[in-house]
Amino acid sequence: MLNEFSVIRNFFSKSQFRRKDVMLGIGDDAAVTMVPAGQYLVTTTDTLLEGVHFKQGTDPSAIAHKSIATNLSDLSAMGAEPSWINLSLSIPSADEEWLETFSGKVHELCEYYSIQLIGGDTVKGNLAVTITAQGFVPPDSYLVRNGAKKNDWIFVTGTLGDAAAGLAILNDELACATNSNRLYLTERHHYPSPRVLAGTALRRMASSCLDVSDGLLQDLQHILEASNVGAVVNLDELPVSKALGETVSELERALELACYGGDDYELLFTVPEEHRVSVESAMSSYNIQCTRIGQITGATNKMELRLRGQSYRFDEVNKGYKHF
Amino acid sequence: MLNEFSVIRNFFSKSQFRRKDVMLGIGDDAAVTMVPAGQYLVTTTDTLLEGVHFKQGTDPSAIAHKSIATNLSDLSAMGAEPSWINLSLSIPSADEEWLETFSGKVHELCEYYSIQLIGGDTVKGNLAVTITAQGFVPPDSYLVRNGAKKNDWIFVTGTLGDAAAGLAILNDELACATNSNRLYLTERHHYPSPRVLAGTALRRMASSCLDVSDGLLQDLQHILEASNVGAVVNLDELPVSKALGETVSELERALELACYGGDDYELLFTVPEEHRVSVESAMSSYNIQCTRIGQITGATNKMELRLRGQSYRFDEVNKGYKHF
Repeated sequence: MLNEFSVIRNFFSKSQFRRKDVMLGIGDDAAVTMVPAGQYLVTTTDTLLEGVHFKQGTDPSAIAHKSIATNLSDLSAMGAEPSWINLSLSIPSADEEWLETFSGKVHELCEYYSIQLIGGDTVKGNLAVTITAQGFVPPDSYLVRNGAKKNDWIFVTGTLGDAAAGLAILNDELACATNSNRLYLTERHHYPSPRVLAGTALRRMASSCLDVSDGLLQDLQHILEASNVGAVVNLDELPVSKALGETVSELERALELACYGGDDYELLFTVPEEHRVSVESAMSSYNIQCTRIGQITGATNKMELRLRGQSYRFDEVNKGYKHF
Repeated sequence: MLNEFSVIRNFFSKSQFRRKDVMLGIGDDAAVTMVPAGQYLVTTTDTLLEGVHFKQGTDPSAIAHKSIATNLSDLSAMGAEPSWINLSLSIPSADEEWLETFSGKVHELCEYYSIQLIGGDTVKGNLAVTITAQGFVPPDSYLVRNGAKKNDWIFVTGTLGDAAAGLAILNDELACATNSNRLYLTERHHYPSPRVLAGTALRRMASSCLDVSDGLLQDLQHILEASNVGAVVNLDELPVSKALGETVSELERALELACYGGDDYELLFTVPEEHRVSVESAMSSYNIQCTRIGQITGATNKMELRLRGQSYRFDEVNKGYKHF
């Protein structure tokens, strides 16, 4: 059985991606790093628990991916460029094979995103992963939730509902006709892609931004409340993947997944008309799918859903992810 | 039942201590802060789990205190000045009374240490607290583990073994004759004091430093391995509190607690002879007890214990805290 020191040494401090702004990484009481002159530091923390955020027996590679992706997604929603992560890992035992796979994915993602794992903690307990991610943003260009103004356009990156459909498939609540669709949707659940490039591209152009983790409508409501505005959402415009469209043929069910499904980690943001074309061409030049799904209104906190020009209501309300 | 948003709003974002270098605190996807020009950022993460780091039923005030103190202790061991914390809280249910007490202590400590809670996460699960603490240190004055040199003096702040004795009392493994000693020792277990002032005072003077969390000898071994040196420790010199001395009369047992007891969060550091007097007077001027307990030798990784001038061996070895 390994002790904490060999866990850190064997799996997390070896052969890792190194940045020049890390003076002292893993192995001391704390890490010492340097934020570039004139930039602000952006910090976020997210915890994933077995049985809550991922099923027992989930591939450690998917757990590592999702833990890092959710945090980088939060940084992206601020327009920040990620730099370093801290990892606190609670594991029932120091299972070497599990740790090898988990840490391998951590190192792979660090290299992919040019970020460095600078520290953390390993404790013995139920499986849980807490990541704290840090990054930078130039002053006055970070993206907030409370800046949406009347008439701003509402955009979302990528497609909606895939991760929720993937989870439903894994839970045997949704049947999937083809293996490729099954794979696509479950991978969207296990391996979400943080929109790092989109986030930095939106600096100074988006009037508000967040990432869709709890479901489109619930997350849009956060923007409305923070900004003291309302919104019209055109359900006809919601971007749905080919795989989701083929798997869920009933319109109401597809809309529910797109509106209430969590864990897509797409960016939801608002853009004043003056920046609309710039945003659309920036996204297009980065090959990032980006769809205008509605518009901000002056009707405080009020959200109107429209389908084929008519007001639309779901049978039940408040289907977003509940934490408690 | 409260949901995540009201937990954050009700307990953690209200009436909190605010710093001018926090551009955006709790409530968005991430926090935005400013590291002072010319300073390095220092970051550390620690997780405390119920049943591992604290007993079931522990006062939420003690859990909050210990979670923050262990992290500030790590920053202190780097010579850093603490600035901000992130809190990830896993709780089985949103018990308002528990949260009121826990968050009250978080706010109290933030105010006491002039730090701000800038973000976090709340999830539903077994009770666990992960804190990420951040702070600053001037370049080239942070304290590391690998700088101890032959002939440097070994010092420790405060007294050793109290927290372990407190835990033994709570576990009914140690009897305590007086209520005041019982209170003193159990409080040392529940409410450790991070040595923030001592840490910053040691900048540029200590050749190595860490905080005693796993037990004196195990932590000293980390310095020896990192610095590639050895040490002589004079057990006669180990600082033991009056309460511990009165509670544990048998010498071998008292020494064991002082050498192997964890969770004291005192600073263990080495000082070259040229800085010895400066360190002793700095500590004295801050009223911080500070004891010279041994000396660094050239015998790589070898630790010699001495009692009354003779080499000493404990009956069993390797009694430090095991994480797995």
